[in-house]
Amino acid sequence: MSQKMMLLSATLSSGYGVQGQAWRAPENDTRNLTDVEVQVKLAQTAERGKFAFLFAPDFPGARGDMENQAPASTLDPIVTLSVLAHETTRVGFIATGSTTYNEPYNLARQFKALDVLSRGRMGWNAVTTSDPIAVANYGEQVRPRAERYERAHEMITIVQALWGSWGEDAWVGDVDTGQFLDMDQIQPINLGGKHIASRGPLVIPPSEQGQPVVASAGGGEYGLGLAGRYASVAVGSSTYDFATTRQEREMYRSAAHQAGRDADELKYFTGFMPIMGSTVEEAIRRRMQMDEHLAPQRVPMLGQMLGLSLDASRADQPLSGPQLESARANPADPRSSRALEIAYQGWTPREILAHGVIDYAPSPVGPPEAIADYLQDAFEAGIADGFWLQQATYAIADDFVDEVVPILQKRGLYHRDYQGSTLREHLGVPRQYGQDPRVS
Amino acid sequence: MSQKMMLLSATLSSGYGVQGQAWRAPENDTRNLTDVEVQVKLAQTAERGKFAFLFAPDFPGARGDMENQAPASTLDPIVTLSVLAHETTRVGFIATGSTTYNEPYNLARQFKALDVLSRGRMGWNAVTTSDPIAVANYGEQVRPRAERYERAHEMITIVQALWGSWGEDAWVGDVDTGQFLDMDQIQPINLGGKHIASRGPLVIPPSEQGQPVVASAGGGEYGLGLAGRYASVAVGSSTYDFATTRQEREMYRSAAHQAGRDADELKYFTGFMPIMGSTVEEAIRRRMQMDEHLAPQRVPMLGQMLGLSLDASRADQPLSGPQLESARANPADPRSSRALEIAYQGWTPREILAHGVIDYAPSPVGPPEAIADYLQDAFEAGIADGFWLQQATYAIADDFVDEVVPILQKRGLYHRDYQGSTLREHLGVPRQYGQDPRVS
Ligand SMILES: Cc1cc2nc3c(=O)[nH]c(=O)nc-3n(C[C@H](O)[C@H](O)[C@H](O)COP(=O)(O)O)c2cc1C
Ligand SMILES: Cc1cc2nc3c(=O)[nH]c(=O)nc-3n(C[C@H](O)[C@H](O)[C@H](O)COP(=O)(O)O)c2cc1C
Repeated sequence: MSQKMMLLSATLSSGYGVQGQAWRAPENDTRNLTDVEVQVKLAQTAERGKFAFLFAPDFPGARGDMENQAPASTLDPIVTLSVLAHETTRVGFIATGSTTYNEPYNLARQFKALDVLSRGRMGWNAVTTSDPIAVANYGEQVRPRAERYERAHEMITIVQALWGSWGEDAWVGDVDTGQFLDMDQIQPINLGGKHIASRGPLVIPPSEQGQPVVASAGGGEYGLGLAGRYASVAVGSSTYDFATTRQEREMYRSAAHQAGRDADELKYFTGFMPIMGSTVEEAIRRRMQMDEHLAPQRVPMLGQMLGLSLDASRADQPLSGPQLESARANPADPRSSRALEIAYQGWTPREILAHGVIDYAPSPVGPPEAIADYLQDAFEAGIADGFWLQQATYAIADDFVDEVVPILQKRGLYHRDYQGSTLREHLGVPRQYGQDPRVS
Repeated sequence: MSQKMMLLSATLSSGYGVQGQAWRAPENDTRNLTDVEVQVKLAQTAERGKFAFLFAPDFPGARGDMENQAPASTLDPIVTLSVLAHETTRVGFIATGSTTYNEPYNLARQFKALDVLSRGRMGWNAVTTSDPIAVANYGEQVRPRAERYERAHEMITIVQALWGSWGEDAWVGDVDTGQFLDMDQIQPINLGGKHIASRGPLVIPPSEQGQPVVASAGGGEYGLGLAGRYASVAVGSSTYDFATTRQEREMYRSAAHQAGRDADELKYFTGFMPIMGSTVEEAIRRRMQMDEHLAPQRVPMLGQMLGLSLDASRADQPLSGPQLESARANPADPRSSRALEIAYQGWTPREILAHGVIDYAPSPVGPPEAIADYLQDAFEAGIADGFWLQQATYAIADDFVDEVVPILQKRGLYHRDYQGSTLREHLGVPRQYGQDPRVS
């Protein structure tokens, strides 16, 4: 029990998977976008796998290749998670919410209501929203980074103060005396900054974990400042080798330390996108099926990674000797060296791509043991406290939970059951109510 | 079937009832505020009663006598209704949302996501938020009425345009061709006014009723202008006699007509607060139990209504002959003449109050037949299209559904089952998608 174990999480997206054409995969119904039962099933799978949380990235806007790819986010994170919280009992949830395009009172209220509904299983991924497509939906142009993060600090401060504005023992509810609340313990916060203000109090009692966990994603100098001060979860950026990832984790840890906290209070998660099958060949074949239609865009991208001119008409021919000889890993793309390594093994461009070499996260390939080996190596190399499963298609979550999780458990790397009932307990981070007195 | 029947709705509050001390009633657990199952049960009761919708008033703030009374609103309407939508199949929901303290994109997204989740059962009660306690939670002071309503028009226009920005047949989802959306049918709205703007589109497909219904409450010149243009439901203000209520209904109907719509597209609901028992005496006794602790405040209020000086020490003595002789109905309070009438019958002040004479809506008293008689008279007098049950305590919704509804059905005044599955069908109002082309 005292041995440190890895944590796991998975992605809540629009109901298909993080691969933009997953909606065409045979196991997905094309109408999953509006079928909340698909999300309920994912949450139950994550719970069966004793995952710490489902992570719901969110962009309030229509971006990317909308003609051919399903939207990336759920219809609305608060609406979807309200249902999932009600249909599960243990798994946690981290939903993304903008610090720039929400009123602190509204955001504080919805997240704390969800925290109470879920009995202490909610987290808030606080993002500043810098995508021009998203900000246009609020009639704006992208605000300068410094301004966005200044507001983000105000926002988190006010939200946490509102969360703490109903004192932990304020709820008397004495039928005989008729006292419902001890109003000495429910006081206005009267907080305001340059951008936003709120008087409070917020009339929502504490949840089983006190208040929602704060999470942060994205890094950068400003992002680290935010995460170091307030976050219990940091979701790492797209990194592909152990050294870079471990370095990012260290940056987060020292940001927490600099803010006056214990570095262990900030759990760092890094992404992975497993490609599973009973053998490497089968795993590749399954992924090729799903990626079937992506060759026209992706084969030329692979060419750029290898310094070769490639197009989709050559997708199924192994690279020639002269091609392999002149191939060079593109130093500007951290995924290139792995692509080159796989090319040397003699695969065709389509097969190389099916190894996930242009996925947004490292993609271990093969049978369950191979996936478990990757996670074991990564965890033992100290690159992360937890791993964030980005399932190309939702079905991979089931495969992973049913086939990889038992191996990790057998190896003593992963818990056999939840030890507590709240997200804070799952993460092993301290209870917090209101603002953190150590952080100014 | 072709005979016009009344519609019914009930109140979704914080889990006890609209009487502020309902949390002390023996049938309520003092912790109902955080127990969503209580709300689920109410929704199922309303559905058993074939109600058109549950109505969730909402004030984003802590107001009133918080020490002794439970909060009036649910923890958060979107969070609560997401669960209720998932746990029911027919009953509709109308949630209150501020036109002043929300971004149109956020509000449009959450309500349409809920409309999709509920398969077309959502409505939005658009309010401008003028309570100083609520607006202080947004760091503001109350805005002038003209400004609030100018913004409200912009808000509803933009929200409805966003709702319609995903064309009704835009969702192709053709696995073979790989086309997910027909982007010709999904276009930015590029709408902006003096206060707010949004580019869009909103990436949520139509629900079974197209998009949520708009509702309006509160009246006044400005409120009528809003309701006439956009609303399918108007919830009337506190009126106590048939003539006044019918007049308010007519004002709403002519506002709709003036906006270029058919007056029948705007359904007017008026409130009622039944006090039920197998006899009048038992009904009064039950209500007295619940109001037990209110005498100190309410007996003097009754005195003011009757032009008498009364205090709680006299709560249980019938009014004396001289008192009855000098009593006069206070012309400034429309509830006074009924209070006087009941006083003449010889009841004590506490008993007069237990007739609901200072409730916020007319309060018929007695056995189920008496409640049904009241609704029949009111409906046949043409005062409303529907009645909004304000249950003093949640349990009254069960009593009403199990005992009064069957009488109304037997009398042919109320439907025996839902005819359709959407809120628009329940109300008998036309489908709408995007903005109403008749309204400018
Ligand atoms: C793993 C990860 C997840 C992210 N999730 C979101 C998200 O859900 N929504 C969002 O608007 N931005 C998201 N971001 C973007 C970051 O919040 C941040 O805006 C971005 O890294 C750009 O940095 P900047 O804000 O310093 O310009 C994510 C970033 C990373 C690395
Ligand atoms: C039946 C009814 C229900 C109402 N519900 C709400 C509500 O839930 N939230 C709110 O802020 N105001 C509510 N109001 C207040 C009105 O929206 C409106 O603000 C009020 O009548 C004052 O009018 P004004 O906006 O013209 O100043 C309600 C009013 C009535 C009559």
